[in-house]
Amino acid sequence: MAGSDGTFDFCDLVVPGVRELQPYQPGKPIGELAREYGLSESRIVKLASNENPLGPSPKAIEAVRQAVQDAHRYPDGNGHALRSALAERHGITPERILLGNGSNDLLDLVARTFLGSTRQAVYAQHAFAVYPIATRSAGAEGIVAPANGVEHRQPYGHDLAAMTACITPRTRVVFLANPNNPTGTWLAAEELEVFLETVPGDVIVVVDEAYVEYAQGLAGYREVSGWLDRFPNLLITRTFSKAHGLAGLRVGYALCRADIVEFLNRVRHPFNVNSLAQVGATAALADPMHVARTVELNHRERKRLTEDLRRLNLRVLPAAGNFLCVEIGSQAAAVNEALLRDGIIVRPLAGYALPRFLRVSLGTGEENDRFMASLQQIHARGLLEVTA
Amino acid sequence: MAGSDGTFDFCDLVVPGVRELQPYQPGKPIGELAREYGLSESRIVKLASNENPLGPSPKAIEAVRQAVQDAHRYPDGNGHALRSALAERHGITPERILLGNGSNDLLDLVARTFLGSTRQAVYAQHAFAVYPIATRSAGAEGIVAPANGVEHRQPYGHDLAAMTACITPRTRVVFLANPNNPTGTWLAAEELEVFLETVPGDVIVVVDEAYVEYAQGLAGYREVSGWLDRFPNLLITRTFSKAHGLAGLRVGYALCRADIVEFLNRVRHPFNVNSLAQVGATAALADPMHVARTVELNHRERKRLTEDLRRLNLRVLPAAGNFLCVEIGSQAAAVNEALLRDGIIVRPLAGYALPRFLRVSLGTGEENDRFMASLQQIHARGLLEVTA
Repeated sequence: MAGSDGTFDFCDLVVPGVRELQPYQPGKPIGELAREYGLSESRIVKLASNENPLGPSPKAIEAVRQAVQDAHRYPDGNGHALRSALAERHGITPERILLGNGSNDLLDLVARTFLGSTRQAVYAQHAFAVYPIATRSAGAEGIVAPANGVEHRQPYGHDLAAMTACITPRTRVVFLANPNNPTGTWLAAEELEVFLETVPGDVIVVVDEAYVEYAQGLAGYREVSGWLDRFPNLLITRTFSKAHGLAGLRVGYALCRADIVEFLNRVRHPFNVNSLAQVGATAALADPMHVARTVELNHRERKRLTEDLRRLNLRVLPAAGNFLCVEIGSQAAAVNEALLRDGIIVRPLAGYALPRFLRVSLGTGEENDRFMASLQQIHARGLLEVTA
Repeated sequence: MAGSDGTFDFCDLVVPGVRELQPYQPGKPIGELAREYGLSESRIVKLASNENPLGPSPKAIEAVRQAVQDAHRYPDGNGHALRSALAERHGITPERILLGNGSNDLLDLVARTFLGSTRQAVYAQHAFAVYPIATRSAGAEGIVAPANGVEHRQPYGHDLAAMTACITPRTRVVFLANPNNPTGTWLAAEELEVFLETVPGDVIVVVDEAYVEYAQGLAGYREVSGWLDRFPNLLITRTFSKAHGLAGLRVGYALCRADIVEFLNRVRHPFNVNSLAQVGATAALADPMHVARTVELNHRERKRLTEDLRRLNLRVLPAAGNFLCVEIGSQAAAVNEALLRDGIIVRPLAGYALPRFLRVSLGTGEENDRFMASLQQIHARGLLEVTA
């Protein structure tokens, strides 16, 4: 097992689940595109990571600026202020809330606590990439349920009947997202209710509501925190990265039974959420107007950009989030590259088994116009197929 | 397995390593003491978490204040700017640097990558509490090597011969701290060198140098980043939480082989270090004067407080960090409680199998005076034993 330089081949030492793991591929940062393509940062439009185009809540900005002078102090490992504020918001006790370094951390805590080499997690095809990563890095087996067919009213979305069929006695966790990223599709409350009634009580059902604010009002959609008492195996994750505009700070939270919080706390790093993140999130929670402005812009631009794209005869999936999932056709990778050269970052979806699609975050009106203008030029070059 | 409310007992679902885990007990936050004891926050002196009494680098504060307006953007998952700056500082390539959400994150990544249910990690008695937590939550077995005896020149410090004797064919990781927290003891470079020559090449040796800045100049002590090429199984962790005064931001980093970084990256959360943490740490690294002032204050107060405590006939362990480990005697818990009532937070060490000791972080001269004044009063009440 000695390597070419006479030392040990460390790959042989890596635990099996991790050895096969591919790291998550995030959206390209603005600085990276600027360096790689020799572009000016100010000319770059990033529509790749479903960030809030209005920026952070001004109240959060001010609160962080005040708090940074105390950054030599460790964070409050119990997150007292933020958990109290969240408890009040959701009308539950703080003991039922767990803070995470983004919801990624929470998904991972669930996997580490309830999965292991003999256990399985179920998630859907085209679901968020962190579900398989968290599952495999916990040493467990991931079972991928087929997604809805292309003719379904929520094409490529979660097929709950298929997910139910994947559950075995070894299944301990189901991960699902509502709305789902990257497809943007959503589940009606009714079908989710039937699913939760069907799933065995010893399977934790994680309902990832990262995009909850953007989905309110859509046909059949409802957030499900009211079901926590009814379904003891329900665990809901939320994030401050989307409508609250604090993706850079990394704050997510889980809502679930107090005893589940206690188990997850054993694996949680004591200072997983940093001080400024706690302060910023607490201030953002007290600024509902910023969220309202964010959602209003989102609904307006979601409608407008969908229409613009359909005018190019492109298929746009039903969209409940702050992004559109657009079928570009066989040249999607080339289109992505052309957009990059034009200073526009969107997200290619080949890694999600959707190689013909690009995911476009909804920006400001001006940013979306830049994207559409660039896409029009690409259209003129014949790179777009008729997919609608 | 149904619980009293007719639902499943979720404890039965938790994976074995996690079921027995006790969460890390951090130092009591100032806000918590104020709430619990009805004290004014401004009157509280926290000497419990080895924080920098001079606060964050002013350059870091300014950089964070500038950056917060972009907090709606995800962090750079590659940490380009900070890793480049660290690479320059250490004279190695950025590929050999891994960023963590504090060094806790790094220790955990090592455990998750190289440990598993059939493997063992070795660490010393009285070593940092995160080593056993990371080991057990990865499902592995922790082997505790006995510490130096009380008559050793580094009492309660790491006994490298004992640690070597604990290594078996199933051992994949050794965790050691130099200087060690909470004892404050240190290892001479010579003995560490012999140890690294002895350890099999398929065992990753983590040398946790969180307190490196404070130890420079002590008899025999040397930081060991110069040995990375010589010992391919060496992994060094560092932190911005101590001398750089950024504990609230959570930034640590590991120095090791590029291929080991690559394996750890598979398990690392893509956005583990938040944006403001990256910006703050990069700015702090460019402010060596703040570190110099910090170390100067530390050396002065370490000497002065040690003498003051010895004047009370208390035993103080050899101290290489920014804290003192003081033998208080059988009433250590009562002394801790009396200090708390007086608004002074130190760290009891019963959880480290040192129930007769308290750990006192070195604060400003004024903070240390407040601590000593309070301890003098406690001494007058007869709670301190002669331990020196």
